[in-house]
Amino acid sequence: MTRLLNNPDNFPVESAEGFLLANKRHVRGLYGGAVRATKTPEGKVALVIGGGTGHYPAFAGWVGHGMADGVVMGNIFSSPSAAQAVSVAKAAERGGGVLIAFGNYAGDVLHFGDAAAQLSAQGIPARAVVTTDDIASAGPEEKEKRRGIAGWVPVFKATGAAAERGMNLDEVERVFHKANDRTRTLGVAFSGCTLPGDSEPLFTVPEGKMAIGLGVHGEPGIAEVDFGTADEVAKVLVERLLEERPEGADNRVIALLNGLGTAKYEEMFVTFRAIHRLLEEAGLEIVDGEVGEFATSLDMSGVSLTLHWPDDELVELWNDPVDTPTIRRGTVDAGDLRDDIHTLSQDPTRIAVTEEGSEESRALAAKMADTLDKVAAMLREKMSELGKLDSYAGDGDHGTGMQRGSENAASAARKLLNEGAGAGTLLAGAGEAWSATAGGTSGALWGVILGAAGQGVGDADVPSAEKVAEIVDEVTTTLQQVGAAEEGDKTMLDALLPFTRALKDYVGQGNLAESWNKAATVAAGAAQQTADLSPRIGRARPLAEKSVGHADPGAVSLAYVLATIGEDL
Amino acid sequence: MTRLLNNPDNFPVESAEGFLLANKRHVRGLYGGAVRATKTPEGKVALVIGGGTGHYPAFAGWVGHGMADGVVMGNIFSSPSAAQAVSVAKAAERGGGVLIAFGNYAGDVLHFGDAAAQLSAQGIPARAVVTTDDIASAGPEEKEKRRGIAGWVPVFKATGAAAERGMNLDEVERVFHKANDRTRTLGVAFSGCTLPGDSEPLFTVPEGKMAIGLGVHGEPGIAEVDFGTADEVAKVLVERLLEERPEGADNRVIALLNGLGTAKYEEMFVTFRAIHRLLEEAGLEIVDGEVGEFATSLDMSGVSLTLHWPDDELVELWNDPVDTPTIRRGTVDAGDLRDDIHTLSQDPTRIAVTEEGSEESRALAAKMADTLDKVAAMLREKMSELGKLDSYAGDGDHGTGMQRGSENAASAARKLLNEGAGAGTLLAGAGEAWSATAGGTSGALWGVILGAAGQGVGDADVPSAEKVAEIVDEVTTTLQQVGAAEEGDKTMLDALLPFTRALKDYVGQGNLAESWNKAATVAAGAAQQTADLSPRIGRARPLAEKSVGHADPGAVSLAYVLATIGEDL
Repeated sequence: MTRLLNNPDNFPVESAEGFLLANKRHVRGLYGGAVRATKTPEGKVALVIGGGTGHYPAFAGWVGHGMADGVVMGNIFSSPSAAQAVSVAKAAERGGGVLIAFGNYAGDVLHFGDAAAQLSAQGIPARAVVTTDDIASAGPEEKEKRRGIAGWVPVFKATGAAAERGMNLDEVERVFHKANDRTRTLGVAFSGCTLPGDSEPLFTVPEGKMAIGLGVHGEPGIAEVDFGTADEVAKVLVERLLEERPEGADNRVIALLNGLGTAKYEEMFVTFRAIHRLLEEAGLEIVDGEVGEFATSLDMSGVSLTLHWPDDELVELWNDPVDTPTIRRGTVDAGDLRDDIHTLSQDPTRIAVTEEGSEESRALAAKMADTLDKVAAMLREKMSELGKLDSYAGDGDHGTGMQRGSENAASAARKLLNEGAGAGTLLAGAGEAWSATAGGTSGALWGVILGAAGQGVGDADVPSAEKVAEIVDEVTTTLQQVGAAEEGDKTMLDALLPFTRALKDYVGQGNLAESWNKAATVAAGAAQQTADLSPRIGRARPLAEKSVGHADPGAVSLAYVLATIGEDL
Repeated sequence: MTRLLNNPDNFPVESAEGFLLANKRHVRGLYGGAVRATKTPEGKVALVIGGGTGHYPAFAGWVGHGMADGVVMGNIFSSPSAAQAVSVAKAAERGGGVLIAFGNYAGDVLHFGDAAAQLSAQGIPARAVVTTDDIASAGPEEKEKRRGIAGWVPVFKATGAAAERGMNLDEVERVFHKANDRTRTLGVAFSGCTLPGDSEPLFTVPEGKMAIGLGVHGEPGIAEVDFGTADEVAKVLVERLLEERPEGADNRVIALLNGLGTAKYEEMFVTFRAIHRLLEEAGLEIVDGEVGEFATSLDMSGVSLTLHWPDDELVELWNDPVDTPTIRRGTVDAGDLRDDIHTLSQDPTRIAVTEEGSEESRALAAKMADTLDKVAAMLREKMSELGKLDSYAGDGDHGTGMQRGSENAASAARKLLNEGAGAGTLLAGAGEAWSATAGGTSGALWGVILGAAGQGVGDADVPSAEKVAEIVDEVTTTLQQVGAAEEGDKTMLDALLPFTRALKDYVGQGNLAESWNKAATVAAGAAQQTADLSPRIGRARPLAEKSVGHADPGAVSLAYVLATIGEDL
């Protein structure tokens, strides 16, 4: 819902004023809307666009060199008046005539048509033209009745570029119609938007459903279907749009994925990935792709896909320079494209065995690789428990982080073992793999733990119980330095420090396995006691107050790992 | 919540792939993230930025000429690994060394610090530096502990421009620290974000409250206060930020209002309007203002304000050309600024009396002006009833539209009357004023009604009852043509046509007042009967199915107006 507002009655005017203040470089306000801040050449055709407010960047975000000369700004979802359009058109026109372009909505048709007639009567050649890209709003046999939605972008871009090139009014209008004829859009919505000052949305879509073809003001769509994955949503959009390939289109498309309000960039990128693949599978060449917010509907949840099928002229016009508040292109000459970077996710193998370990160290390494497998299996089992704990303390990814990290560590260890690694190299390599895969704070710390342990163990001897206790002590000291934390800060150290002290105490009294397991029990108890601690804030650590009363996930997972190691000793 | 996803585990990778596919002109993907698609000059310092995913445009949206050379992309809200950073840095570096810059988060500090150490050990000079702009995350005496948030934009912009200019690593690092020292951010949040695949948000803010200083992953803020108006939110942000004017700052600021996820552009503009005023009142010069989404937190609701206090060097670096997926500047030369457009909302007075009306027409005009006052008063009273009806049929603005339009019409009529207008000119002028203020479809149609009536009435005679019935008939025909509607389409015509027929019938049988009032009763009945009609869809008219069972607001308001006129005859 709209939360930032003053008196709802003043919302459209205050929003327009804020827009103008934030975009002084591009626009100047006047009665009815705004025109470019810069002077345009005499004789240039003026492209004036507009409609109701609530769709930003449509329409005010597109005023500037290479696109619109002026924008007429209405109230929320309500067309501006003819008087407003005349005011803006007169400020924008430079003797070449005016093309007033807008979506095909009743109020806009009436007012802008009236404005064009008034301007013509005053000796300013003016024409009103409508975009009709929304394939859901009328059948293919009634294309002229369709609404205009996000297809505004390629149509206004082409038209604005044509006018900027100095084409006359007839030519600019020809480009407008060609671009519109070659543009198709389909949207899906998951929930409606709420008007400023209202508490209820304009419409709702049942939970688990999505509406196909719903208009940007809640106009009825063509179907309500079950909500699928991002890939399935992409399929619906692409398939329906490809059913209506425009006459004269070749295999080139420009694809725009538009967020309607609350769809976020990351999920739109996930969806665009599938759209790109489907278009390629259909044999199409994707001349350009744009993912972002172009024609919104306040806080409506959903996306629309626009396919623009350019010919040579339209490709050129699309690539022409443009400089508006929200669309900019044709900037600095950034130089030649690189051809030395090819792949997204090929993990460079960074772990290598430079020298084989001793026979006994390799035997120890084999044991350790088995233990790492068990640790990974255990952490997969504990994944959701750790994730839940982390949802109190952080962002809930500790479970998945530990699971991914330990699995990659185990598999790196296996690889190194086959290459003849001793125990020290194996541990260090496993640590690097853990850190590289898990990311996050805990990934880094486990990388440090295993790396420091590997350094202590080395590739020659099998350490005695006392030596193991020493190594654990060194690891703990290193971790304290790297993590810059202290006991009581509610971190994994609150389990590790008691473990280290207990192991040192017990190791004189029995064998390693016995001492380790007793110390691991101490660690498990200490981990549970972290529930009583307050989180350490500072050094920008993302811990919430709500973690009080819940054990620290890092301490708990450490205790689990220590116990699993103990079983194997 | 995140709705568009496939397997949540794959979300970050799929999102990164989609980003790369949509931005081929700017970026090339590789293990760990992405680098510029274009070749950079030998010896150039490489700026590598990065952190967790979920904050787009931070960080991938800032790779390109004039800003970053590479981006390291982590999992959702989780730092990337040192191995990823090393991979990206190696692909980005050109012999001038690497500056790795990021927010001050524990995981990032560990991994990027490690990466810088690894690169240096391999002979590539590399330094890890952190931004610390979030004033809520630690006190002024512990500035170095603060988190980095949306202040990334001016800091990375300055640093990237410095590197693009060919400054060496020491100089680029100097600019980084200066820019960071002069940048302060404070955010407010109204609700938390939901991680992909989760059904519950990471955190919640109580209804009616807002959290000040909450971090971009839900880190605790400094206070929870009552939610105020946009102006009050602006005041909180500006006042707290001005308490921390950086050392050495003069009176220049660059202000960035950042949407955290679901705040919409229109409400951000409303807020920016107040911010701009407050900064001016504080005697500051606003060098530049930016309103948009820069550092988001998935679908978190809230905004943050960043104040960057540039010196001469930082102003220049801010204005240097840049070409990234989301920040572009320094494009085409758009020419000189206009100085002939000054005011936002000065309504050009379009109505004028060219010739005085006859005495009797002026007397009629005076009566009409009184009636228009009564119509306006009546419509103010009916405003919420009509708004409610329209919430079923459209977007709920019919009540406010009729109220605004009729009030402006009445005041224009009064003005024209004082200038000696006859009845025809008065009606036409009132129609223009109605249409100009109300906008929307009904505003246009009422403009047409009054204009056509004025033409029929003229400025000479007082029409007879029969002539009035004729004029009404002409008005109805004109309206039908303009509105392109027919009886039964569920529009105001469904009341106007029965009224017109009834008036014609009754007018032979009694005086005008009697006939008019009887016909008005017919219109009122017909208006109520529109409840049974289905809305006319097509010509992109925004009517929802839910209007069935509710009378058409346009027909109802017409009947009210007819009845009010009748009282005065």
